[in-house]
This record gives sequence, C-alpha cells and structure tokens, in this order.
Amino acid sequence: MFGVTILGNNSALPAFDRHPTAQVVTLGEHIFLIDCGEGTQMQIARYKIKRSRINHIFISHLHGDHYFGLIGLITSMGLLGRENDLHLFAPKGLDEIIAMQLNVAATTLPFKLHFHTLEKEGIILSHHKYQVECFATKHRIECWGFVIREKKVPRKIDKEKVLHYEIPTAYYDSLKLGNDYETKDGNIIKNETVTVANTPSKSYAYCADTIYDEELIDKVKNVDVLYHETTYLKDLHEKAALRFHSTTIQAASIASKAFAKKLLIGHFSSKYEELESFLTETKEVFSNTELAIEGISFRI
Amino acid sequence: MFGVTILGNNSALPAFDRHPTAQVVTLGEHIFLIDCGEGTQMQIARYKIKRSRINHIFISHLHGDHYFGLIGLITSMGLLGRENDLHLFAPKGLDEIIAMQLNVAATTLPFKLHFHTLEKEGIILSHHKYQVECFATKHRIECWGFVIREKKVPRKIDKEKVLHYEIPTAYYDSLKLGNDYETKDGNIIKNETVTVANTPSKSYAYCADTIYDEELIDKVKNVDVLYHETTYLKDLHEKAALRFHSTTIQAASIASKAFAKKLLIGHFSSKYEELESFLTETKEVFSNTELAIEGISFRI
Repeated sequence: MFGVTILGNNSALPAFDRHPTAQVVTLGEHIFLIDCGEGTQMQIARYKIKRSRINHIFISHLHGDHYFGLIGLITSMGLLGRENDLHLFAPKGLDEIIAMQLNVAATTLPFKLHFHTLEKEGIILSHHKYQVECFATKHRIECWGFVIREKKVPRKIDKEKVLHYEIPTAYYDSLKLGNDYETKDGNIIKNETVTVANTPSKSYAYCADTIYDEELIDKVKNVDVLYHETTYLKDLHEKAALRFHSTTIQAASIASKAFAKKLLIGHFSSKYEELESFLTETKEVFSNTELAIEGISFRI
Repeated sequence: MFGVTILGNNSALPAFDRHPTAQVVTLGEHIFLIDCGEGTQMQIARYKIKRSRINHIFISHLHGDHYFGLIGLITSMGLLGRENDLHLFAPKGLDEIIAMQLNVAATTLPFKLHFHTLEKEGIILSHHKYQVECFATKHRIECWGFVIREKKVPRKIDKEKVLHYEIPTAYYDSLKLGNDYETKDGNIIKNETVTVANTPSKSYAYCADTIYDEELIDKVKNVDVLYHETTYLKDLHEKAALRFHSTTIQAASIASKAFAKKLLIGHFSSKYEELESFLTETKEVFSNTELAIEGISFRI
C-alpha cells in the first residue's frame, strides 16, 4: 500500500474549516509526514493516523502554515512516551527554534530527535523499500519539494513454485533480483520458472509552495502522483506570481509537461470558499486531477 | 458586558475534540486573550470572536499547551492587515522565540507588537475601565495567574435629572465621583439628586497551572469568578502534586477559602473522556461550580 492522506489543504490563513498544509504518505508500514501546519496533531487524531509510526517528517519551508504544528506534535509524542528516534528534514533554522521551545519549557524528550538540514537537491533518505529526494522550488524563502519513490526488486517469488523446487529461503533475495538457481546436482532452474514480474515502482512528488517554474518539470518527471499547489484560480496569475504561488492552469501545465499520471491540487487561498472551480479549471489542461480534500486518501 | 468565553479546556495533550488552554475575556468593547494553545486561531474563528479587537494577550507560562497557537494567531493577524498595536504579556523567552519565527519566515508584521515581560506580582495594565494584575502560581516552570478587575466610578448619571437641572456635561465626571454641583447662582444640587449608585465592579481571576497552593487564596480573594485548573479527579492527588497540578477538591477548597462567588474548572487531563465527575466532585466542596466547556461564555 502506497498512498497519501491529506490533513490540511489551505494556504496561510485557516478558513472554512480547512487547515494549513500537512500530508501523510503511507508506504507499507512506513508513515511519512510532509509539512505540519498548526493543528496537524489534531488532524492526525481525527483521521486515526498511527502517530507512533511516523519516524520521518519533511518540512518544505519555514512559513508558519507549513510548520507551526510541528512543536506541538513533537511534544505530544514525548508526552505519549515515544522512544523511537524521530528524523526531521527541514531548512536550517528550525532546529534552533525547536531547541529554544523545548528549553523554555524545561522539556527533555524521551526519544532522540535527529535534525537533517536540507542543503542540496538529491537523495536525503534511502531504504531498501523506498527513497526520498528533495528538490528546490522557487518561493519567497528557501523552499523544498520532495519525491518519495518505492524501490521494488524486479521479480516476486512464486511461493508454490519455490516450495515445489525446494529452493532454500536463503536464495530468495537472489531470485528476486532475477538470478537463476542451481540445484546441488547441477540443474539450473530458470528464474522465470519460480518468480513473477513485480508491479512497477510508484512515486509521489510534493511540490510545496512555488511560483510557476518549468525547472520543476524534470524534477518530477513521470511520477505517478504529483501534488502541486494552486493557491489561486487562473485569473489571479499576476497576484500568484507576485506572491510566488501558482494558479490552476500553471499546476496543470507542470503536470502535463512532466507526464505525471495524476495531479493533486491544494494550498487554496482563504479567499475561496468553494473549491469546485479549482477542479474545473485545472481539468481544462490536465484531466486526471483531484482536489486535495482533507481526510481523503489517494492511492499512488 | 463582562464575561469569559472558553476556547480550550484540555491539558497538554489534545483529546476528545478538546483543545489546549485559551480563554477570551470580554469587557465592554475590550477583548483580552488569556493563553493561546495550538489551534486557538481556529477556535477564535469557530466561536466568532472579533480577533481585530484583541489588543492584549496574556500568556501564563511557556508550556506549549498554553502558547503554541500564539505565533499562528499573530502571523494571521498580520496577513489580515492588522494595524493596531498588540500588547503581549508573557514570561521572558517568548519574545525571542517569536522574533526567531518571524525572522526565518522573512515576515515583517504590519502592526507593532509590544512585549511586556512578566517579572513581579502586581498591576500590569491599567485603564480607566479596568485593570489587570498578575500573580505567581506554583508550577514546574515560572507561571503566572491574572486578575482582571472592572473599575467603576461610584455613581452613574441620572440622565433625566442632569438635563432637568441643566448641568453642563463638563461636570459629569465630577458627578460620577460623588461630588455635588454648584449652580451659577450658588445653589447646591446634592449628588444623590442627579446620580444613582453604580453596580459593583466585578472581577475575574485566572489561576493558570498550579499545584494546590494556599498562597493563592489572598491573591484571588473575593473575585466574582475564579478559574482554577483541575487536571485530575481527587483520587489522583499524589500524581497532581508530583506534576504541580491540582484536583477537583483542591480547586474547590481555594475557591471556598477565597470567597469566590463562582468557580470555573478546566485543564482536564486527556485521560478523562467524561467530565461529569469533575463537576460532581468539585461541587461537594464548592457548589457554585461550572465546567469550562469550550464555546461556552460565562457572565462575570
């Protein structure tokens, strides 16, 4: 299971019961939190996300609507007796703010908080089942997007067949990589006999806050699901540019040029109560678009 | 109109849709915010508090459940184009945290934020219609309670009578203070002829987080409404003491010994889903008690 759940979809000012940005990406037993606006811990509780399983948090930039909920989440994790390490990836400066807030409260966390400063584009986290990359977006302050990619070995074990041929489990990893198996008496069992093709690895890109920027196209090329902000409808493209944000048409254009399979749009300005026009406008350019509605999970 | 509206009544960990501490005190056209846990700006919107009229914010202490919502509220005020000065009364350290958070976001507020460090007990704000005092409570870190007192001059003008006696409006303030009026031809008009007795000045005390502490009794003596925390039910008095919090019976005992007219209780531990026992236990000792339920306003 690889999916993303929206916890907050609004831009700076909370409005109409929409919350500032936060998303949870689930990949098997791993849960990643991307951005953490004010109230994220309440949203995590509301949507029954297992917060103890969040071990990695990615913060795109230090505008408050993307991180003001972080210190509350961290201290609550502490109050709940968390012991596992927590890894935080964020721009420089957030480490000092957190340290100061813990210090004035005389709080010592019962778990280790690792701070990883985002400094350059590339892989920031690697695991045998996934990797996470960061890339720069163009916003008013330093800002980062993230791509989470599944890693899948080429082949899956066919359980009946490996039992039938009595292949020891120690060889399974080699089989998954596509190798043949040689029995003790020298017979070759072809890989295709005991494995099946794996499903393709999927990927999710989160573009954070950004002005329309064609440099993003290569960075999110071919992803299965692309989240791109649409703070404004298309008529406000001048305002969007001025504030380093994007419109519906611009997000759709990036998705289209990057050959994304699906587009999620969010970070809606508080000036809009109804969101339907965001969907209509974006679909004019990129039809497989969905609104990042809070509480909804999208399969990647 | 003098009243308090509860925006958050839960202790550290948000639970059961209860929010961390925040209260709004309304006194005529003045609105004071006391404490500002995470999500307070959303609660302000939900309960339709006029946030532009909040000019004074009082933060009791620097545990996150009492101030993590402050930076979000302040930046939202800025985004909404606030121009009026905002006065913040809080323990030392919060000024630096706010400055750092504004700095990393490259945010310049469009209004002036005055930071007043709480240092010693006494009057911290004085106006011809009210005054605010702070007092120390005993908690794990430096912590302050607040008393907001109406100021009323002794007498109210009887509008028909002052017109009848043709007393110039320039003399009204003197009449309110109880003075007689001397006409141009030397006649004395007794004060009681043209004024009526005023209603008594009311007062509200907010005890913040505190262990059971009889030193509080004098500090909140005779207030009309006393808010005192009850983090735990009476059976957990040892745990309460250990964590520098209070129980139902302890809050009731302070209210009773201070001759408070009404007691509000809150800051309920997340271990309790039902709050009815808090009310029952507290009323055993102090009958005029009410639960500080979110969204409810209490007349002072």
